[in-house]
Amino acid sequence: MNHSLSIEDEIDGDTLHEECGVFGILGHPDAATLTALGLHALQHRGQEAAGIVSFDGQRFHSERQMGLVGDHYTDPATLARLPGDRSIGHVRYSTTGETILRNVQPLFAELEVGGIAIAHNGNFTNGLTMRRQLIADGAICQSTSDTEVVLHLIARSKHPSSSDRFIDAIRQMEGGYSMLAMTRTKLIAARDPIGIRPLVMGELDGKPIFCSETCALDIIGAKYIRDVENGEVVICEIQSDGSITIDARKPDVSQPERLCLFEYVYFARPDSVVGGRNVYVARKNMGINLAKEAPIEADVVVPVPDGGTPAAIGYAQASGIPFELGIIRNHYVGRTFIEPTQQIRAFGVKLKHSANRAIIEGKRVVLVDDSIVRGTTSVKIVQMIRDAGAREVHIRVASPMIFHPDFYGIDTPDADKLLANQYSSLKAMCDFIGADSLEFLSIDGLYRAVGGVSRDNAQPQFTDHYFTGDYPTRLLDRESTSNVRKLSVLASNG
Amino acid sequence: MNHSLSIEDEIDGDTLHEECGVFGILGHPDAATLTALGLHALQHRGQEAAGIVSFDGQRFHSERQMGLVGDHYTDPATLARLPGDRSIGHVRYSTTGETILRNVQPLFAELEVGGIAIAHNGNFTNGLTMRRQLIADGAICQSTSDTEVVLHLIARSKHPSSSDRFIDAIRQMEGGYSMLAMTRTKLIAARDPIGIRPLVMGELDGKPIFCSETCALDIIGAKYIRDVENGEVVICEIQSDGSITIDARKPDVSQPERLCLFEYVYFARPDSVVGGRNVYVARKNMGINLAKEAPIEADVVVPVPDGGTPAAIGYAQASGIPFELGIIRNHYVGRTFIEPTQQIRAFGVKLKHSANRAIIEGKRVVLVDDSIVRGTTSVKIVQMIRDAGAREVHIRVASPMIFHPDFYGIDTPDADKLLANQYSSLKAMCDFIGADSLEFLSIDGLYRAVGGVSRDNAQPQFTDHYFTGDYPTRLLDRESTSNVRKLSVLASNG
Amino acid sequence: MNHSLSIEDEIDGDTLHEECGVFGILGHPDAATLTALGLHALQHRGQEAAGIVSFDGQRFHSERQMGLVGDHYTDPATLARLPGDRSIGHVRYSTTGETILRNVQPLFAELEVGGIAIAHNGNFTNGLTMRRQLIADGAICQSTSDTEVVLHLIARSKHPSSSDRFIDAIRQMEGGYSMLAMTRTKLIAARDPIGIRPLVMGELDGKPIFCSETCALDIIGAKYIRDVENGEVVICEIQSDGSITIDARKPDVSQPERLCLFEYVYFARPDSVVGGRNVYVARKNMGINLAKEAPIEADVVVPVPDGGTPAAIGYAQASGIPFELGIIRNHYVGRTFIEPTQQIRAFGVKLKHSANRAIIEGKRVVLVDDSIVRGTTSVKIVQMIRDAGAREVHIRVASPMIFHPDFYGIDTPDADKLLANQYSSLKAMCDFIGADSLEFLSIDGLYRAVGGVSRDNAQPQFTDHYFTGDYPTRLLDRESTSNVRKLSVLASNG
Amino acid sequence: MNHSLSIEDEIDGDTLHEECGVFGILGHPDAATLTALGLHALQHRGQEAAGIVSFDGQRFHSERQMGLVGDHYTDPATLARLPGDRSIGHVRYSTTGETILRNVQPLFAELEVGGIAIAHNGNFTNGLTMRRQLIADGAICQSTSDTEVVLHLIARSKHPSSSDRFIDAIRQMEGGYSMLAMTRTKLIAARDPIGIRPLVMGELDGKPIFCSETCALDIIGAKYIRDVENGEVVICEIQSDGSITIDARKPDVSQPERLCLFEYVYFARPDSVVGGRNVYVARKNMGINLAKEAPIEADVVVPVPDGGTPAAIGYAQASGIPFELGIIRNHYVGRTFIEPTQQIRAFGVKLKHSANRAIIEGKRVVLVDDSIVRGTTSVKIVQMIRDAGAREVHIRVASPMIFHPDFYGIDTPDADKLLANQYSSLKAMCDFIGADSLEFLSIDGLYRAVGGVSRDNAQPQFTDHYFTGDYPTRLLDRESTSNVRKLSVLASNG
Repeated sequence: MNHSLSIEDEIDGDTLHEECGVFGILGHPDAATLTALGLHALQHRGQEAAGIVSFDGQRFHSERQMGLVGDHYTDPATLARLPGDRSIGHVRYSTTGETILRNVQPLFAELEVGGIAIAHNGNFTNGLTMRRQLIADGAICQSTSDTEVVLHLIARSKHPSSSDRFIDAIRQMEGGYSMLAMTRTKLIAARDPIGIRPLVMGELDGKPIFCSETCALDIIGAKYIRDVENGEVVICEIQSDGSITIDARKPDVSQPERLCLFEYVYFARPDSVVGGRNVYVARKNMGINLAKEAPIEADVVVPVPDGGTPAAIGYAQASGIPFELGIIRNHYVGRTFIEPTQQIRAFGVKLKHSANRAIIEGKRVVLVDDSIVRGTTSVKIVQMIRDAGAREVHIRVASPMIFHPDFYGIDTPDADKLLANQYSSLKAMCDFIGADSLEFLSIDGLYRAVGGVSRDNAQPQFTDHYFTGDYPTRLLDRESTSNVRKLSVLASNG
Repeated sequence: MNHSLSIEDEIDGDTLHEECGVFGILGHPDAATLTALGLHALQHRGQEAAGIVSFDGQRFHSERQMGLVGDHYTDPATLARLPGDRSIGHVRYSTTGETILRNVQPLFAELEVGGIAIAHNGNFTNGLTMRRQLIADGAICQSTSDTEVVLHLIARSKHPSSSDRFIDAIRQMEGGYSMLAMTRTKLIAARDPIGIRPLVMGELDGKPIFCSETCALDIIGAKYIRDVENGEVVICEIQSDGSITIDARKPDVSQPERLCLFEYVYFARPDSVVGGRNVYVARKNMGINLAKEAPIEADVVVPVPDGGTPAAIGYAQASGIPFELGIIRNHYVGRTFIEPTQQIRAFGVKLKHSANRAIIEGKRVVLVDDSIVRGTTSVKIVQMIRDAGAREVHIRVASPMIFHPDFYGIDTPDADKLLANQYSSLKAMCDFIGADSLEFLSIDGLYRAVGGVSRDNAQPQFTDHYFTGDYPTRLLDRESTSNVRKLSVLASNG
Repeated sequence: MNHSLSIEDEIDGDTLHEECGVFGILGHPDAATLTALGLHALQHRGQEAAGIVSFDGQRFHSERQMGLVGDHYTDPATLARLPGDRSIGHVRYSTTGETILRNVQPLFAELEVGGIAIAHNGNFTNGLTMRRQLIADGAICQSTSDTEVVLHLIARSKHPSSSDRFIDAIRQMEGGYSMLAMTRTKLIAARDPIGIRPLVMGELDGKPIFCSETCALDIIGAKYIRDVENGEVVICEIQSDGSITIDARKPDVSQPERLCLFEYVYFARPDSVVGGRNVYVARKNMGINLAKEAPIEADVVVPVPDGGTPAAIGYAQASGIPFELGIIRNHYVGRTFIEPTQQIRAFGVKLKHSANRAIIEGKRVVLVDDSIVRGTTSVKIVQMIRDAGAREVHIRVASPMIFHPDFYGIDTPDADKLLANQYSSLKAMCDFIGADSLEFLSIDGLYRAVGGVSRDNAQPQFTDHYFTGDYPTRLLDRESTSNVRKLSVLASNG
Repeated sequence: MNHSLSIEDEIDGDTLHEECGVFGILGHPDAATLTALGLHALQHRGQEAAGIVSFDGQRFHSERQMGLVGDHYTDPATLARLPGDRSIGHVRYSTTGETILRNVQPLFAELEVGGIAIAHNGNFTNGLTMRRQLIADGAICQSTSDTEVVLHLIARSKHPSSSDRFIDAIRQMEGGYSMLAMTRTKLIAARDPIGIRPLVMGELDGKPIFCSETCALDIIGAKYIRDVENGEVVICEIQSDGSITIDARKPDVSQPERLCLFEYVYFARPDSVVGGRNVYVARKNMGINLAKEAPIEADVVVPVPDGGTPAAIGYAQASGIPFELGIIRNHYVGRTFIEPTQQIRAFGVKLKHSANRAIIEGKRVVLVDDSIVRGTTSVKIVQMIRDAGAREVHIRVASPMIFHPDFYGIDTPDADKLLANQYSSLKAMCDFIGADSLEFLSIDGLYRAVGGVSRDNAQPQFTDHYFTGDYPTRLLDRESTSNVRKLSVLASNG
């Protein structure tokens, strides 16, 4: 698995998608350029669309574009349309395939107290419920994005200040979110009560920055300050003398943080530090633990690139079996491969992955992947490795089996499409995939790889609901049936 | 003056622009195609953008595009995205040059009672006031169009039915409007209390149609039924058995109709019948009356094409002076001429108009134009005619002098840019333009050309405020100062 | 009939197309801008593509674009890519529908003596024959345009100077052509031996200009000098001191000029002076002569716009019947109307023409058109006029019947598709069209309208082969059978 | 170094570019689809443009597009325009930045004996000389590509058969080339006399395939047959019964093969087998030999991704120092990053590479890169590694120093821009780069890594002129001075 425009994944739906990354900066003369660079570093969190809103002291300026950050936002003409010393930006992956511009964030609203732009990573578990209430109360929803619900709550809040309105609004929302808001004078950052999605605070030339991952700080040479805490709202404001005040508001009743484990398994970039832990090291540890839990005699350890590479390095080091590039990845995926002809679809995995026969032929191969969702890609990769002459193919997966859907910003297939729900035994899964053996990392092995200790079942250190079914919040929309799609009655082009 | 993409007009701002045309049909299997054709016939009312919303029994479908109807809406792929047997459409001219897609109509909102789409020709004189109130009350405005205000009022109305909500909303609006709305089962048409903007009702295969002008009925072979009356709301609804009911609601207190005279002078297509009067005939009458009011000895009558042609024919017939094509118009105006280089700008009027020397040379020429706004174009045309060897150039304008701005949907230059406000005497204007003589049609001459009788000063038959300053409604936004631009704080691209 | 992007014409093939217009200027600092403006004035001679080549003293610069001149060539960025004080340009209509960029002129070749660009209006009657010989001799033809044949002949000529090579080349070609060539120092103009296609010479700020029609001189304020004579080659050269020499070479044996009559009937712009005769006056004369040859009692004279308008004015003046705009033309033809859906195709003529019922109803109408090719459009227009309530419809055509194809640059339908070849009598044609009467101008009436005297059958003053079959040259390609399409074996996109 | 759209490379010119990859297939019903897939696998050999020509028994069909194969060629509409059972394709990198469509291959010519399309990887050392002769002899060159010279030689050859003409033509060319040609019935493959560029033959469903690398066979499941030999011409022809004959013509006097070593060092894909040797294994061997030749005490081996990864794995295995992903690569490079603003340019290497601090901090780092061209990128990467807290940075380069330009299809910077020519000592280079130590693989170490034995100085097994100055052919164009640019006098857009 991996993060780029993915051919066979699109074809099979055999992947998980994170929906978003956010970046914001206040008070810096190069605000829009730095935001574009930060979003470029966060591109793995969403490749379908990107948007930036800036404020120049007089007007807000908005650019929203389909495609990569680097397709538009480094163009001098585009940056020139985003003047000002403060801006927030957003990259997104579409859950539905119907992404249209007006769903692209940041979203903007003109309030009585002035304009506000917001950008959001995560998902609300009461979004549809709130939206229904708002519409009944005469609100007009333009997008199909839950983020707009927050805008309406801000607009309708009776608090006089924009930051109080913002807090008033997000306190009504449930689920997982890391959110940035920008008003005429403020940059506001907030994380949900248990901190499912990551959000960090940094600083460049003394100016505050918030972003989803530390890699967005690194690219611009900014300094990491700290993580925004779960439940915290941080309000940065430019004062009339140009100085910036920072006001961090903690929730009255604090809950323990439970970061999403999939950030470590798959989403975050290897060089990011999430919750104080380097992601590459965590992934390598997953491979080390996997080698201990599920050893096998073999000749080569081969990663499924790029996602499986860190764990494969760990597995190789722990097992003493050589690490080799037995699969070569083709990064040149153009626009039309996304919707290929049936004929080309048949070439499936080969459009992106190619077996390196000289490494594979006659060998006992340990294939290390980060996770298995539906397993359909694994079937093709195992076949490709066998066609290249492997004597044995052993799959080692650096995370546990996935049984449950996510509701906090990860796009998961329907539960009955998940491999773990389709076969009752590991043996049956292994047969389906066509491997000689198949093993998954244990949940404790994963916890130890990330946090150093096993799962505290009384009070788990992370959220791991896709593996365990232990959802960390109530799921209001889900409980009230038949909400879904009731409201998306406009198919629009423009 | 004329209606197509206009070079020198853009350069000089020397023209008036109508902002919109509308079309709607209910219950016809070819709804979107017929709407596209109707909008094509109404293209002279707005060339900058066009939109269509259809409803297929399940979902609303929306297409909004910059450019001509014929640039997009006759493409089979586009029409295929607009299924269903009911649709409304809109063509618009931008007042600001900042037209962006989300200002393009029809606008759509998801209400508690189901979706609604609205399209609007005209302008509200209390739009900014209402918008300010809505925002204070927590509404989020996405577009900068006043039309959205109506959507919010509909959404917030407490009436249970969509048609009552619609009526509730428009009764709060002041100004000039012809408006169409479409819900899941209804097509609704409404005109403002004094009927400033035109709106007619027709029928094709027994299905109701509403559109701005009769020429949109003619193109699809539909039958003209009647004008929607001033202040009237006509509600057409598809019943469960497929039959269509029509419910016409008149206002409790009826006022006399006062159609905008500029529809006759310039906006409406010559073959349209507006308020029961053929526009070509009215314009020819203007020329005839002009010949009587302002005769001159001359050799040829030459129209400023295309706007001045009908009046020139009338002038020639009444005066006995031959009608000749002394100015040739180039219709091939491409995209870049709209924003020309300075070098090309210098060629001004010649990009579109060319003197036909063989007709002009040595002649005493009567130039007939429909109206004069700033006069800058007239200066260039007179110069061009003189360069082609005319012995004398006499300008005859088939409408009175323009002194006042419009607030009902016509985009007028600032008052101090109007020719009539820049020079205190006809002689001074004539000198500025460089003609040997200059005469305007009288206000009574215009009234008689259109309606057969002179102006009833106690109760004028039409609205003629640009000529007379006699505004037919109060101007609330204008009276509350400094409203303008306060709210357009977002510059957006997408 | 008319010159703009034509809906029903495209649908029915019921029109004639001129293939090209040319413009060139030497020694002027604004060469490319002036060329763009000149081509804009010549746009009626070809709307499908336009190209300009300039030379800046060091390098040749080429722009070739599909679409209107005004779509691209007034963009400052485009003009900036065409530096230099000399340039030639070309507008073209495609004969085949397969127009691709590499067929767009001017064509360019790098010769041993330096680069040369050529642009061409007309058609060679021995083009395929010459092309076959060149290919047999090892030449590589990139385009499917005959113009490229001339380039090869220039490249292979053994003369040392580029102008002698050019003359050497065109002396080998037969047919009708007006051709411009530009080398590093020269601008060369040439017309075919009998001058079928027009070409005029003008002057701006002392710098020589050549163009297809005088309207291209008028737009830039240039002075008309004289027509390039039939068979003449005019060589303008910039000398090292910046002065320009002009060398006019006449053919050894001179033939009488025979301009194409269709330039007067239909192609040239009304304000152009072709062969010393104003086109509008000629067309009005056609209408006057038509009124004399084919009088009818009627109430209104209605032109089929825009082509029939001058003749209708003439007819009205000669007959005393009032001239009225009984048909309104919609000029807003967008891109997709060119390839409409079947549904929209059915609306045919109404997409562009609309009957003005108030003028037509109950009237005896004389419809004046410039020419009839296949007659399919006439059928629809007559029907439209009858639907609008005309009591009688009399068609008067301001040119004779067309029986024969053209081979000199006019794209004609197959002979058996021509109305005149489908029906043996005028009565049968009239019945097909559905008119009450149908009359064509006589060949002598046409000659007198254009040149003042009847046809000199021994030595006709013009070429009129489409009416008479009297081809003014041999037709070599046509005589050698099966040449056609043998060579167009590459279908290319790019 | 690496092969994708490269930010800092573009900025600094600090890379080598291979110009092309080719693919051809004869007699397969899915010819164009297979060609598109093959070109996709060869995309690393040229990302700027791609073209395919097919033949359907009647006509040749050509598509040429800027951009990636996957941007266009998997679109069903594009493939539908390429019917037929035979096709050849080409991917190219531009040497000049002036790539325009008409330079995109395959090139096509209509010959007397029928059409021919050719595609070419490599460069001719007598191309300009031949071009000059052809132009003097009356040929017209449309492109600025040397490949067109071959087309002209084929067109002018007096041989009756197309294959003899092809051989006649290429025998006149000097330099390095792997070339494919397609006529109505034949697919022809040829390699230059010493086989500088690679070309392999494969087979799918019994139909012959030629392509630059074996990875293009693997993607479509085709079988590798053999390399086309140096100096060999292989002619495959479809007979009237549908069978295919294969005629392999060897040169009369055979020379030993000398493949370009840079194919192993950098250009070829790791999973390709070039000259019978797996590229990944060769690169790993380079790393192993480098560890032996230039050992260093260190904590981690870090590759400069992606080019340095195989050698780093080898270095780590041979040295026992752990292999770690200390640099994370961002593959999401969009369109505008190619021409960034100055502000973004300043972020240089970070747009694509990011240091993984957790792996680097406090460590002694061995950085393994495949090659160093100008060294400007190395400077930035070393700085980035130091900024991430490395205690020591040792650069190990898996190939020798580059001193000399290439003339066989690799785009090299001017010699004086090469790092090796800018500093007289290794120490000085190391100081410039800012590393603690810097070592290059020896030429013998490279030979042994690729071929198993040291360089045979009397008769080198490969061509290695960029390292040694030992050019394997004469350099005719270079010897005749001032050829360059004399002929590129047309700057064209379309």
